[in-house]
Amino acid sequence: MNPTYKKLDKNNAAVLLVDHQTGLINLVQDYTPNEFKNNVLAIANVAKYFNLPTILTTSFEDGPNGPLVPELKEMFPNTPYVARPGQINAWDNEDFVKAVKATGKKQLIIAGVVTEVCVAFPALSAIEEGFDVFIVTDASGTFNKDTRDGALMRMVQAGAQPLNWFAVACELHRDWRNDIEGLGTLFSNHIPNYRNLMNSYASRSKQAA
Amino acid sequence: MNPTYKKLDKNNAAVLLVDHQTGLINLVQDYTPNEFKNNVLAIANVAKYFNLPTILTTSFEDGPNGPLVPELKEMFPNTPYVARPGQINAWDNEDFVKAVKATGKKQLIIAGVVTEVCVAFPALSAIEEGFDVFIVTDASGTFNKDTRDGALMRMVQAGAQPLNWFAVACELHRDWRNDIEGLGTLFSNHIPNYRNLMNSYASRSKQAA
Amino acid sequence: MNPTYKKLDKNNAAVLLVDHQTGLINLVQDYTPNEFKNNVLAIANVAKYFNLPTILTTSFEDGPNGPLVPELKEMFPNTPYVARPGQINAWDNEDFVKAVKATGKKQLIIAGVVTEVCVAFPALSAIEEGFDVFIVTDASGTFNKDTRDGALMRMVQAGAQPLNWFAVACELHRDWRNDIEGLGTLFSNHIPNYRNLMNSYASRSKQAA
Amino acid sequence: MNPTYKKLDKNNAAVLLVDHQTGLINLVQDYTPNEFKNNVLAIANVAKYFNLPTILTTSFEDGPNGPLVPELKEMFPNTPYVARPGQINAWDNEDFVKAVKATGKKQLIIAGVVTEVCVAFPALSAIEEGFDVFIVTDASGTFNKDTRDGALMRMVQAGAQPLNWFAVACELHRDWRNDIEGLGTLFSNHIPNYRNLMNSYASRSKQAA
Amino acid sequence: MNPTYKKLDKNNAAVLLVDHQTGLINLVQDYTPNEFKNNVLAIANVAKYFNLPTILTTSFEDGPNGPLVPELKEMFPNTPYVARPGQINAWDNEDFVKAVKATGKKQLIIAGVVTEVCVAFPALSAIEEGFDVFIVTDASGTFNKDTRDGALMRMVQAGAQPLNWFAVACELHRDWRNDIEGLGTLFSNHIPNYRNLMNSYASRSKQAA
Amino acid sequence: MNPTYKKLDKNNAAVLLVDHQTGLINLVQDYTPNEFKNNVLAIANVAKYFNLPTILTTSFEDGPNGPLVPELKEMFPNTPYVARPGQINAWDNEDFVKAVKATGKKQLIIAGVVTEVCVAFPALSAIEEGFDVFIVTDASGTFNKDTRDGALMRMVQAGAQPLNWFAVACELHRDWRNDIEGLGTLFSNHIPNYRNLMNSYASRSKQAA
Amino acid sequence: MNPTYKKLDKNNAAVLLVDHQTGLINLVQDYTPNEFKNNVLAIANVAKYFNLPTILTTSFEDGPNGPLVPELKEMFPNTPYVARPGQINAWDNEDFVKAVKATGKKQLIIAGVVTEVCVAFPALSAIEEGFDVFIVTDASGTFNKDTRDGALMRMVQAGAQPLNWFAVACELHRDWRNDIEGLGTLFSNHIPNYRNLMNSYASRSKQAA
Amino acid sequence: MNPTYKKLDKNNAAVLLVDHQTGLINLVQDYTPNEFKNNVLAIANVAKYFNLPTILTTSFEDGPNGPLVPELKEMFPNTPYVARPGQINAWDNEDFVKAVKATGKKQLIIAGVVTEVCVAFPALSAIEEGFDVFIVTDASGTFNKDTRDGALMRMVQAGAQPLNWFAVACELHRDWRNDIEGLGTLFSNHIPNYRNLMNSYASRSKQAA
Repeated sequence: MNPTYKKLDKNNAAVLLVDHQTGLINLVQDYTPNEFKNNVLAIANVAKYFNLPTILTTSFEDGPNGPLVPELKEMFPNTPYVARPGQINAWDNEDFVKAVKATGKKQLIIAGVVTEVCVAFPALSAIEEGFDVFIVTDASGTFNKDTRDGALMRMVQAGAQPLNWFAVACELHRDWRNDIEGLGTLFSNHIPNYRNLMNSYASRSKQAA
Repeated sequence: MNPTYKKLDKNNAAVLLVDHQTGLINLVQDYTPNEFKNNVLAIANVAKYFNLPTILTTSFEDGPNGPLVPELKEMFPNTPYVARPGQINAWDNEDFVKAVKATGKKQLIIAGVVTEVCVAFPALSAIEEGFDVFIVTDASGTFNKDTRDGALMRMVQAGAQPLNWFAVACELHRDWRNDIEGLGTLFSNHIPNYRNLMNSYASRSKQAA
Repeated sequence: MNPTYKKLDKNNAAVLLVDHQTGLINLVQDYTPNEFKNNVLAIANVAKYFNLPTILTTSFEDGPNGPLVPELKEMFPNTPYVARPGQINAWDNEDFVKAVKATGKKQLIIAGVVTEVCVAFPALSAIEEGFDVFIVTDASGTFNKDTRDGALMRMVQAGAQPLNWFAVACELHRDWRNDIEGLGTLFSNHIPNYRNLMNSYASRSKQAA
Repeated sequence: MNPTYKKLDKNNAAVLLVDHQTGLINLVQDYTPNEFKNNVLAIANVAKYFNLPTILTTSFEDGPNGPLVPELKEMFPNTPYVARPGQINAWDNEDFVKAVKATGKKQLIIAGVVTEVCVAFPALSAIEEGFDVFIVTDASGTFNKDTRDGALMRMVQAGAQPLNWFAVACELHRDWRNDIEGLGTLFSNHIPNYRNLMNSYASRSKQAA
Repeated sequence: MNPTYKKLDKNNAAVLLVDHQTGLINLVQDYTPNEFKNNVLAIANVAKYFNLPTILTTSFEDGPNGPLVPELKEMFPNTPYVARPGQINAWDNEDFVKAVKATGKKQLIIAGVVTEVCVAFPALSAIEEGFDVFIVTDASGTFNKDTRDGALMRMVQAGAQPLNWFAVACELHRDWRNDIEGLGTLFSNHIPNYRNLMNSYASRSKQAA
Repeated sequence: MNPTYKKLDKNNAAVLLVDHQTGLINLVQDYTPNEFKNNVLAIANVAKYFNLPTILTTSFEDGPNGPLVPELKEMFPNTPYVARPGQINAWDNEDFVKAVKATGKKQLIIAGVVTEVCVAFPALSAIEEGFDVFIVTDASGTFNKDTRDGALMRMVQAGAQPLNWFAVACELHRDWRNDIEGLGTLFSNHIPNYRNLMNSYASRSKQAA
Repeated sequence: MNPTYKKLDKNNAAVLLVDHQTGLINLVQDYTPNEFKNNVLAIANVAKYFNLPTILTTSFEDGPNGPLVPELKEMFPNTPYVARPGQINAWDNEDFVKAVKATGKKQLIIAGVVTEVCVAFPALSAIEEGFDVFIVTDASGTFNKDTRDGALMRMVQAGAQPLNWFAVACELHRDWRNDIEGLGTLFSNHIPNYRNLMNSYASRSKQAA
Repeated sequence: MNPTYKKLDKNNAAVLLVDHQTGLINLVQDYTPNEFKNNVLAIANVAKYFNLPTILTTSFEDGPNGPLVPELKEMFPNTPYVARPGQINAWDNEDFVKAVKATGKKQLIIAGVVTEVCVAFPALSAIEEGFDVFIVTDASGTFNKDTRDGALMRMVQAGAQPLNWFAVACELHRDWRNDIEGLGTLFSNHIPNYRNLMNSYASRSKQAA
């Protein structure tokens, strides 16, 4: 029997953004700050673009960990938002799990800070409960690359699949013809060199016209 | 029971070159441009040298992604060439899959741009349908090494085997005596230091003569 | 059947600190000296903080390998301490294994120097005997990163789980409310940027008061 | 006699943005694309914020080099814009030099693509004519870090001073009290971790209120 | 005429610690957090050990930049402490310059955050006024290594001398016999591998006794 | 059932040194030349020290690949030496396989040049025939680290275990008391920092005497 | 007085290619082999394109250093070619210096293997005799990056200017209009991503037509 | 006036090996241990080969710094050996300076551990007294590359010239014909890939014979 390709399905996927808080993000050193900010906003925009149910959660946001980054709050004004009173693993918070289950989706796309805790713990818990888990590697950050590598090994060992936000978007979209402009705008906003390709192309087209 | 060594067989292998387009290649930053160009041409020359059925495909080549690099077009004038109208995963394109199946081969050697999408998606689809998949790691490129590493983990998790173009050539050839000069020329053209070894050797032989 | 999340449980875990000796540590080059010292003291403090049974062992401490670093000795004055007369794999030493089994714990958190020997050998032995093994990647050091990577691959292949000391602490603690101040102090002492977050926060609170 | 500190003076400085074109930027590999985009927009915003005379120039923008990135065009609608018909060194173009001299400034802040040509050539020419030259290192990009390092050595050898955009902003501003909010906004928009500091601070202040 | 060796003299040197604030330090990414913390405390201990006049200064410590790290405050309770109301270059603050000049020293040892601004600006100003400037490279941090490298080039171009804290200590001490134990303790506390050498040595001596 | 710890056993292990030829080694760039030379000689000395049956083989040694490095020839004058007439995979050579099987050992320790071909091919073949395979990662070299990483993934996927030469030696030796001096000499000759530890120790002992 | 911009002048420049021999090039590890080969051929093509007098020289080409790479021989069949009988510094060879002086040029563009010897020695000698020396950094190779960095420091200290081959070409050409197609072809052949820009552009133009 | 090429002259050069002690070398992390050991022995062999007066010195060799590495002692049994009682800068020791001056040489080739102290201090002192100083960069080691880079900047700023041991040997030898075999042996012993070139060459010659 061949291994199944467990592929993201926009009708069966939810997004979990875990602890992207202003204090915690300043601990991240395995991505440069501008790359990381871009990737987090990109996966958030992917979630919005595909209308995926999205759940926000934070850990102790009134303390040193700081508030959720304001951009995410603004992008998802009506989404479930679970400010956890203490649980380190978001999956240990009943409201969070309820919100996840309420989506009715079986595929979970998870990003968070820091990778080996805020991402890995709920990822492993969700796998145990039968969800298919997809890690957004480049929108998840931690203290250094060594730590990230160990965290990915542990999650992959348990069956999680590692993808960057771009692969998530592509696997959800399937076919450019579903909406060329929409996907193009997403890429143009978050991949500067893709934007350059588009602008070079547009410029040449205008010249030719 | 011991694990089988699924080894490349020149009578049972086809090559899929996915989206080596002028625009997309300029997004690649996990290999330096000269290394990458060399590796892509090398795997193409391997395909030609072993007369492996080869399939070319592109994504939106009339847009910013740009045309297939001309060198590949010239090397494979009569091969199936599937300009996909929108499918991101080449395997979602019927013509492409038909072309693959028409080769009658069970081993697929895949290279493409970008690794986590244009390579990983068809690789995972092909595995699901029972093909043995070999990823040409160094002729596949993407935005950065982090993304590549995640993509390889995902593909290896599903059973794909990662090889560089040189290992592909060696595993197909099996024995230098099948054609010393042919293989030597291939290596001389794409491995500068091997070429240097050959030239040092030839020079010394001439002196001695 | 879903894969089980084998998660650290403070009631079922013991810590093994293997060969953190003054001579051997000077061989370590895959972490910078200050990072490594910090990580070793951090995992030791985690062990103390959670009152985990902890076992110290050394290899030939009267020779060039040098004595156990004095800080560890002082932190665990009453813990089993096995100065091995020659066994390279601590698990080959009966006293060590007896001490491990006497804890009655089924989860072993292992750190040591050098990773591919002093950590990997007892880890693989313990797995064979049915223990769940957790490797503290950043409190284990060796000659270079290449060697560490191979060692982790070998241990993960056998089922060991790689974590940094921070993930160990978080997985054991589960909920900040179990003791906010205690965990906070631990992090403040061993994660300078977390300490900075806390001091920024405290300063602002004082201003506001 | 002590060496003079040649310090940027907002009343005596002009900004030259050289060849930030969509095609050329896709050749840049010594900064990641998101970092580079951020840095280029940041120095442009610095120029606007301090009302520094700013000159844009491009090389062959109707060809493969591509158009100026649209963001720069929009930010500086009324600034001198010299589309050079062929001169590689912008200083070899009379209109460009006239525009520079028309500013009446003696300090030139230069950024461009690629560093060793489009930045270094006009920088060396300007030094020869007695200007003080400041290179915005992180808003200038090229093929790889080796090339950048050589280019900086050559320019420093001739007396140019290397700064990142942040140092340029700080040296021009001198004192936060000249406009706390303005400078803060600039930093918040282009230094994600600074923005995080500000948001953590604001959040705590709100709590305290 | 030979170039003079401008060597640190403990009777003629003062230490300036500029903007080691909790918020700003969390922006530093060119050293790992534990290395950086160690280096900052080390140069502070060097200052204390040699009784060098030491001046502390901060920038906007009531805002997002955060307070001076508490350890430094505690180490220097009676030293001049200039909380600058807005000047970015500490040398633009009269109290700071007065404090520097009041020391009567001609050699200034400077460390700070961030390197290209908080260190480079006062360094260049001090050179202009005839001071000999020594940069403590490893107790000065900034956004990334590229920025640091540019900052060092600029300062060296102007005549500043780059040293790590260890070289500062050694150049001030001159001869171990001035106080073997004191210097040894300093090194033991801040160079883990030196501490290991000492502990190995002591252990062997004890054995032999 | 717990996973078995397949551990090296000096009574059941043979060493295969594949294609360490003067030309091929000059292609190696994933280790520096001195490190690589040291590691190759180290594993050879391990083989000799434990009297493990050792098999040498070369590929086309009269051509550009060059002769076996003379040191290996001299160290193993009476060992089977198979100069392959053309087979790329040593396992495709009957004499080689016969020699391997003649040892009667079930554990194969393999090192060679280049990793993804000369090591990986026989490793995968041997696994298929039921041997336990141990890869000496640091005595195997190839074109670059990317290629090595892929090769290790492929071999680990098939069940090979990656070790550096030091782990091989330790796993074979088991207990220092089997021969302290012999093992110590081996380490002293191939691990300069271990030699330094020994010399420091010896010097102190002499002083004390 | 301002520093002069010593700029390459195609009427006053000669190219010295020193010891690009098959054996020596295999010692180079500070550039990857494909990058290095490309850069060497690129500077050779620059020399040909601008009809610069070019001098080839080798060191002991009948021994292990190997012959000049055949491509260079073929490109410059009628150029002075000095096979040095033993002088390590090419400038110590009278024929070589005569050939250099016979060109009547005052600017020397030097590339060679290895950088710190075969490039640095003649560079320093030429500077001493009043020549302006330009080092082609990326067509000069050596054992590792550390060595290269030291060699560049030494040469820059003496007044040599470091450029990559691309900057050499641009500084010689001055204006695209002198020959757009010729320079474009040169870049297309040696900068794969520039070639991609050109092919994207051409493709779009064709579509538009 | 042109800058003089201050070139090493075997009749006017002495070698200073400073503090290559077993303890101190274990602090070195900017070179891998095998590379560093090789480089130190190489420069020592260069000194012997050219019969350069060589001076050994150590710092507190009866303490944790450890004894001089035995290899150096054995190689130079009759050379001046100054065990400094406490001076950190060897130049502060009268015996050392006397020994240096007694050589009558004006060029000093210095290597040592650690670079920023044991090399930089005597280098700067010697320059001040009018010596020409050559730093053997790769036989000098320190805590990390950042520290080395700063140390080299400081020494180059003062006029020291950085060379690797290979450049030292070549600049001293001038012409292979002075002793082909001697120099070849030196290179063969310390540059493994050069040795490979020689062995490939010799093998081919033998075949041809």
